[in-house]
Amino acid sequence: MAKGLKNTLKSVGKAPGSLIYIGEITTPVTDVSISITEYDQHTIKSYQAKTVEECVTCKFSNFNSWINVDGVHNVEIIKTLGEQFGLHQLTLEDILNTEIRPKMEVFESYVLIIVKMLRYNTTTKEVEAEQVSLVLGDNYVLSFQENRDGDVFDGIRLRIANPHGRHRKSGPDYLLYSLLDAVVDHYFVVLERIGEKLEDLEEEITGSPSQDVLKSLYALKQELIFMRRSVWPLREIISSLDREESILIKKEIRKYIRDIYDHTIQVIDTTESFRDSTGSLLDLYLSSVSNRTNDVMKVLTMISTIFMPLTFIAGVYGMNFDNMPELKWRYGYFIILGLMAISIIIMLLWFRRKKWL
Amino acid sequence: MAKGLKNTLKSVGKAPGSLIYIGEITTPVTDVSISITEYDQHTIKSYQAKTVEECVTCKFSNFNSWINVDGVHNVEIIKTLGEQFGLHQLTLEDILNTEIRPKMEVFESYVLIIVKMLRYNTTTKEVEAEQVSLVLGDNYVLSFQENRDGDVFDGIRLRIANPHGRHRKSGPDYLLYSLLDAVVDHYFVVLERIGEKLEDLEEEITGSPSQDVLKSLYALKQELIFMRRSVWPLREIISSLDREESILIKKEIRKYIRDIYDHTIQVIDTTESFRDSTGSLLDLYLSSVSNRTNDVMKVLTMISTIFMPLTFIAGVYGMNFDNMPELKWRYGYFIILGLMAISIIIMLLWFRRKKWL
Amino acid sequence: MAKGLKNTLKSVGKAPGSLIYIGEITTPVTDVSISITEYDQHTIKSYQAKTVEECVTCKFSNFNSWINVDGVHNVEIIKTLGEQFGLHQLTLEDILNTEIRPKMEVFESYVLIIVKMLRYNTTTKEVEAEQVSLVLGDNYVLSFQENRDGDVFDGIRLRIANPHGRHRKSGPDYLLYSLLDAVVDHYFVVLERIGEKLEDLEEEITGSPSQDVLKSLYALKQELIFMRRSVWPLREIISSLDREESILIKKEIRKYIRDIYDHTIQVIDTTESFRDSTGSLLDLYLSSVSNRTNDVMKVLTMISTIFMPLTFIAGVYGMNFDNMPELKWRYGYFIILGLMAISIIIMLLWFRRKKWL
Amino acid sequence: MAKGLKNTLKSVGKAPGSLIYIGEITTPVTDVSISITEYDQHTIKSYQAKTVEECVTCKFSNFNSWINVDGVHNVEIIKTLGEQFGLHQLTLEDILNTEIRPKMEVFESYVLIIVKMLRYNTTTKEVEAEQVSLVLGDNYVLSFQENRDGDVFDGIRLRIANPHGRHRKSGPDYLLYSLLDAVVDHYFVVLERIGEKLEDLEEEITGSPSQDVLKSLYALKQELIFMRRSVWPLREIISSLDREESILIKKEIRKYIRDIYDHTIQVIDTTESFRDSTGSLLDLYLSSVSNRTNDVMKVLTMISTIFMPLTFIAGVYGMNFDNMPELKWRYGYFIILGLMAISIIIMLLWFRRKKWL
Amino acid sequence: MAKGLKNTLKSVGKAPGSLIYIGEITTPVTDVSISITEYDQHTIKSYQAKTVEECVTCKFSNFNSWINVDGVHNVEIIKTLGEQFGLHQLTLEDILNTEIRPKMEVFESYVLIIVKMLRYNTTTKEVEAEQVSLVLGDNYVLSFQENRDGDVFDGIRLRIANPHGRHRKSGPDYLLYSLLDAVVDHYFVVLERIGEKLEDLEEEITGSPSQDVLKSLYALKQELIFMRRSVWPLREIISSLDREESILIKKEIRKYIRDIYDHTIQVIDTTESFRDSTGSLLDLYLSSVSNRTNDVMKVLTMISTIFMPLTFIAGVYGMNFDNMPELKWRYGYFIILGLMAISIIIMLLWFRRKKWL
Ligand SMILES: [Mg+2]
Ligand SMILES: [Mg+2]
Ligand SMILES: [Mg+2]
Ligand SMILES: [Mg+2]
Ligand SMILES: [Mg+2]
Ligand SMILES: [Mg+2]
Ligand SMILES: [Mg+2]
Ligand SMILES: [Mg+2]
Ligand SMILES: [Mg+2]
Ligand SMILES: [Mg+2]
Ligand SMILES: [Mg+2]
Ligand SMILES: [Mg+2]
Ligand SMILES: [Mg+2]
Ligand SMILES: [Mg+2]
Ligand SMILES: [Mg+2]
Ligand SMILES: [Mg+2]
Ligand SMILES: [Mg+2]
Ligand SMILES: [Mg+2]
Ligand SMILES: [Mg+2]
Ligand SMILES: [Mg+2]
Ligand SMILES: [Mg+2]
Ligand SMILES: [Mg+2]
Ligand SMILES: [Mg+2]
Ligand SMILES: [Mg+2]
Ligand SMILES: [Mg+2]
Ligand SMILES: [Mg+2]
Ligand SMILES: [Mg+2]
Ligand SMILES: [Mg+2]
Ligand SMILES: [Mg+2]
Ligand SMILES: [Mg+2]
Ligand SMILES: [Mg+2]
Repeated sequence: MAKGLKNTLKSVGKAPGSLIYIGEITTPVTDVSISITEYDQHTIKSYQAKTVEECVTCKFSNFNSWINVDGVHNVEIIKTLGEQFGLHQLTLEDILNTEIRPKMEVFESYVLIIVKMLRYNTTTKEVEAEQVSLVLGDNYVLSFQENRDGDVFDGIRLRIANPHGRHRKSGPDYLLYSLLDAVVDHYFVVLERIGEKLEDLEEEITGSPSQDVLKSLYALKQELIFMRRSVWPLREIISSLDREESILIKKEIRKYIRDIYDHTIQVIDTTESFRDSTGSLLDLYLSSVSNRTNDVMKVLTMISTIFMPLTFIAGVYGMNFDNMPELKWRYGYFIILGLMAISIIIMLLWFRRKKWL
Repeated sequence: MAKGLKNTLKSVGKAPGSLIYIGEITTPVTDVSISITEYDQHTIKSYQAKTVEECVTCKFSNFNSWINVDGVHNVEIIKTLGEQFGLHQLTLEDILNTEIRPKMEVFESYVLIIVKMLRYNTTTKEVEAEQVSLVLGDNYVLSFQENRDGDVFDGIRLRIANPHGRHRKSGPDYLLYSLLDAVVDHYFVVLERIGEKLEDLEEEITGSPSQDVLKSLYALKQELIFMRRSVWPLREIISSLDREESILIKKEIRKYIRDIYDHTIQVIDTTESFRDSTGSLLDLYLSSVSNRTNDVMKVLTMISTIFMPLTFIAGVYGMNFDNMPELKWRYGYFIILGLMAISIIIMLLWFRRKKWL
Repeated sequence: MAKGLKNTLKSVGKAPGSLIYIGEITTPVTDVSISITEYDQHTIKSYQAKTVEECVTCKFSNFNSWINVDGVHNVEIIKTLGEQFGLHQLTLEDILNTEIRPKMEVFESYVLIIVKMLRYNTTTKEVEAEQVSLVLGDNYVLSFQENRDGDVFDGIRLRIANPHGRHRKSGPDYLLYSLLDAVVDHYFVVLERIGEKLEDLEEEITGSPSQDVLKSLYALKQELIFMRRSVWPLREIISSLDREESILIKKEIRKYIRDIYDHTIQVIDTTESFRDSTGSLLDLYLSSVSNRTNDVMKVLTMISTIFMPLTFIAGVYGMNFDNMPELKWRYGYFIILGLMAISIIIMLLWFRRKKWL
Repeated sequence: MAKGLKNTLKSVGKAPGSLIYIGEITTPVTDVSISITEYDQHTIKSYQAKTVEECVTCKFSNFNSWINVDGVHNVEIIKTLGEQFGLHQLTLEDILNTEIRPKMEVFESYVLIIVKMLRYNTTTKEVEAEQVSLVLGDNYVLSFQENRDGDVFDGIRLRIANPHGRHRKSGPDYLLYSLLDAVVDHYFVVLERIGEKLEDLEEEITGSPSQDVLKSLYALKQELIFMRRSVWPLREIISSLDREESILIKKEIRKYIRDIYDHTIQVIDTTESFRDSTGSLLDLYLSSVSNRTNDVMKVLTMISTIFMPLTFIAGVYGMNFDNMPELKWRYGYFIILGLMAISIIIMLLWFRRKKWL
Repeated sequence: MAKGLKNTLKSVGKAPGSLIYIGEITTPVTDVSISITEYDQHTIKSYQAKTVEECVTCKFSNFNSWINVDGVHNVEIIKTLGEQFGLHQLTLEDILNTEIRPKMEVFESYVLIIVKMLRYNTTTKEVEAEQVSLVLGDNYVLSFQENRDGDVFDGIRLRIANPHGRHRKSGPDYLLYSLLDAVVDHYFVVLERIGEKLEDLEEEITGSPSQDVLKSLYALKQELIFMRRSVWPLREIISSLDREESILIKKEIRKYIRDIYDHTIQVIDTTESFRDSTGSLLDLYLSSVSNRTNDVMKVLTMISTIFMPLTFIAGVYGMNFDNMPELKWRYGYFIILGLMAISIIIMLLWFRRKKWL
């Protein structure tokens, strides 16, 4: 989180619309790739753009096109693309800032949507968060990803390739919908992982928890806070997308948007339930610590209650007074041992009555 | 919960409207049964459909009909039915997904309502949750259940059979209302069971609670979270059903819908009260653990406070110095015993003054 | 609470509008009494109805009338009354269900209001809750009470009897207002009782609390939850009564309704303050338990810290080694006693410095 | 609080508009004083009214007048005033009830505002709460105070006396504004006192807190609850005063009302921050108690860990077996003493490693 | 906080619009400086005003001008400026009160915005809060700062100086936007500092926390409360600035205002996340204290459980009875030592089974 802020600080004191890449540069700048897919009902072309200028032809062609930019750290490329497609300076600034709160903004000739894409990398077995900026124009969709390898859009690529699929008969608004749907669908993957962790923790806590449980619970809470921050604004976005009067989104797409809306609500619902559950688990853990302290105390108290009086009695008959009649008794020692045994039994019965045993 | 998510994952990466059954398959696929009830004021026919195609005749008959599908895991059957009744692909996808958040959606020719049906199985003495999708058309109601044995609609079947009942004079909107009413009514059954458990816990906690109380309380909280997730969206559904301008729901039905609305609110109210109560019970339990720790500590401290000084005194007169005048005294031993007794009495009085005894 | 649910279950699976008494039958069915008060500016008649049919004459007379039914467990009587006054089946169902959430419903010819009447029985010194259903027609008010002895309306009976009172010049809407006002006024009685309990608890907790304090606090919380559930819906009722465009409620009555509204808000405010206070009291109690545990621990630690070293020293000189020079010293014993005394003094000073004494 | 309720109970069962003084009578009834200030741009007259009837002349004069009534326990006086100025029965009832929730009500010929006036009495060094009812007519303001000595309006009296002040050029709406402004301004005085207490508590808690800290914190919370209950309704009042379309409040006064609104919000903000802070302080205190318990436990454990083994060893060589070779060794005693010293050193090192020392 | 209140008290009892400086005077009154920047597309003039009267020329010039006043404690200067620019008395009162809640107010000829400027002083390494009042007129912006050295506007000064920058082509509304943007941008600096502290605390708490952690956490919470109080009202301001129909803010500026809005939301989001995190950290810390207490208890209990029985046995054979057969046994001593060793082993095994070791 603080890392995100640190990146944001790069733009402090700059003019609005100053184009500065706000994010971590993890790949060399040359490693920006632009892939273009042009399609209509009959034809489809997929290729890597060699120059940025190639892209602009899409804008004036009769095809629908999807221009996907992997890597937004190369300010020059973004700037050129922005000029060609008539994007506002503030839009470009937002695209370059990878720490933005998910949001939608409607401009005269395009709609900008920025979301967090969460992806479970099956190789590294880690969740990866990446910001995706989507720009919907009249016949194109631009998508900008931070340049990490891979995304959640492979299914969509396959479906566009299918000449009888819905994509080929629909416009870029349907493509935009598909991209958002893929993003939301993958939230369930992350939620499942969190749900599994939660179940593991539940099992551990109701069993014999180690102290690391607390740190895991804390980490889980932080993940849920992040999830929450990603998905609540997304809900607003999709809700206003449904209400939006833009001609860029056709009426028949609305039903699909409501479908994503349902899923978003479900993600939120689950996230909130998980938060509730972490709270309950913490309570459960804390109570079990209290209970264990109590148990330890009981052991200590029982040991002390039994042995302190006994040790005292032994101490008494260990005194060196000249005149201690009991010491002379023939069975004095055995009587005392007997008394000690009886006192132990009484103590044990008393503990039993107190339900300590 | 995580199980639900795991099922949902089956649809990740699929095209919207891809028909995939999302749920657990607990019965063989052939075990899908379709029962049809056709009725008007004078006639009634109840039968099992042998082929899916039979159902379509209902759509074009002059009767009201209720087509109940037990088992939604057979994708082919659902698809065929969907085509015959003109259901949208997204509707079919929702029907097949048994992990959906309760919702209502109004289409041009039908209204879709998805709810959770909770049922107390008197044989297994367990609460069973099942998703029910209801489709209201102009002269029919379709109901889709996950195929577990039985449902909460037997009372309705009886009332339709009654030739003088209201059902026979009313349209499918009244049937829809009856089905929802039955679902909501059975929420009270589950709430009662939870209420009884809560009372049992209350009794145990105010008595002498075992440590399992915490796990029971945790389980109860999880049940209430589930209840909450089922009934809050239901409230929205019924509230918008009342406001809905659809011609499919006649004006005289509105009063009945408001009646269910009242019941839904009552379920929510009770659920929230129960949540409040579990919170209070947890506080009560934790406090009682603290109090018991305190009591154990007091016993330990009293034992130590009494016997440590005594043992010390005995130790002193157990020392082997050559010159210890008291050891020679005739009544030295008895004087010391007397002093010990007095110190015990003083301690006990002091404990009494501190209210430890 | 669970009891209420159990009663509600009687109606599960029944047709809507099925007339079933949902409540506890504590009095024999014959013990239903109907008292009628007919009045206009000049005349007043008060009598017990012998047959249900008598009541219907009120509907068509020129008088205002107040028909009060004590006991709603006799389904036949309610049904007959309902038919005579043209009440909807759902209204009758609601009247018979004594576990309903307070609510208002506006029908074409009447307004139904259901509230909880709380009454402090000065004989049994207990608070009694009873459901009251009020039906306002054009020239009558019907009031249905669960048949427990007495109600909070005696003041109203006196005021109607007064020939110069406002009642005699006003219509049934003013009577309805008076009944609601009496109900709300008596909430202050219950709040006062709770407030007194709260003060007692506060006194006990800031003094030397017993462990029963927790159970009292828990019971108080449950009472506040009940209070809350009764009065929040009442606020909605009165608020919508003020906005309601019904011709049954004349404009000059609105000022009076706003007056009840003020009182309802005050009841809510006080209830919420009391809830806040119970929370604070619990915190206070828990902290005081922690503090007392701490104090007990300090006593134990001081005793141990003083006597353990002393007992050890005594133990050393109780050893039986042949060659222990100190034992032979003439003042060895007294030197050791002196050392012990000094060590005690040092310990005490150290405790004082640590503020344990 | 409960005291307030007890007073409110006096009106239970009375007819609406029954004039009963609800409050504590702390001064004799004759001790009601009515002071009148009549002023226009050129003239000003200030005098004590000898009879209630004197006041009515103000209503029909060409001057603006401020009639301030100190003491509302004399029902006759209030009733007569009410008749003369045409106040509604419900208004008079509200004025007599000194336990009312702050509120505003607009009548045809006047506006009623009831607020809580908080005043820091510099003599007794205590905060005093008093209810003030303000009635704004077309050329007069009535103010009713519970008869405690003094109020917060002295500054206003001085400003009216100033012939060049804004008051003299303005109508009674500006006077009403001034009175409300004075009331709100004095809330800051009380908040400051609470803020100082909070700082004192913070200092004590981060230092070495006594157990009384908890009671102080509890008392502070109760004060904040009271503050909250006074100021939240006030915010609503002032907000609706701003929106109010009454001709009694001229347009140029709106700016001033928004200024009070700002101050009210600031009071609320500060109150809520203080509530947050009391919560944090409680957490801080509880944690410090836990930490101290922990410290006490460590001392106990260290003492026990060091001396129990030593005492055991001493005990072993205090046994009286005939055949115990070590006892005969020449340096047996010194060897054992050495071993004991070494064991102490080892223990201390171990404690240091555990960071207990 | 209380300090702020104390300053606010200076105005209690004063007439509305009384001009009193409410703040701390940290610099001599003569230390008020007024810097003026006049610019249009072609020209720019920057100078220090020598007299207040100089400023008024700006109002009637054809340039845009930015008049920045450092230090608002000199009432005379503020008053003169207010008269010259036609500011309302209440506006001047607000400017002089440096403890105001951030707010916007629209007057006929100007818009007043008051915000908190937070600045990280890189020299003192401290965050400094300062109130800034902005007045937007048709061709000027007035900015009033409490006179602490420096502000966050240096970047803006540079950009105005740039003849090709947007400022030179835009009006004072763009300047106002830039000032607000700079203020909000610097909130990220403060948040980053808080985020770093939070990470440090997280590290310490999950490691081996000292008790000072609690005080740091408490201080952090107070900082977040302050942050919250500064930024929530700012959000309202910017949101209403966007909706505001004032001709002073041109339509093309709206897009920029929405950009600040996004940033404000992001600040709020982060603040709330940080609050969540402090709560989680407190829970984590408290749990770790409980766990450590538990560990200490275990050590104590193990020591006691091992040595109490041993000491008792030694005590038994230290008794001085004449007839104790074991004492005569040849290997009695060694048998007892053996028994002791075995009992230690059994205890250790038992601890291991209980997972205490
Ligand atoms: Mg910027
Ligand atoms: Mg982020
Ligand atoms: Mg990112
Ligand atoms: Mg989806
Ligand atoms: Mg769907
Ligand atoms: Mg929640
Ligand atoms: Mg909690
Ligand atoms: Mg999908
Ligand atoms: Mg589910
Ligand atoms: Mg299911
Ligand atoms: Mg029902
Ligand atoms: Mg009903
Ligand atoms: Mg029913
Ligand atoms: Mg009830
Ligand atoms: Mg009842
Ligand atoms: Mg009343
Ligand atoms: Mg009133
Ligand atoms: Mg609250
Ligand atoms: Mg609490
Ligand atoms: Mg009354
Ligand atoms: Mg009060
Ligand atoms: Mg008062
Ligand atoms: Mg003020
Ligand atoms: Mg102001
Ligand atoms: Mg809060
Ligand atoms: Mg807390
Ligand atoms: Mg003022
Ligand atoms: Mg401040
Ligand atoms: Mg300041
Ligand atoms: Mg910015
Ligand atoms: Mg932006």
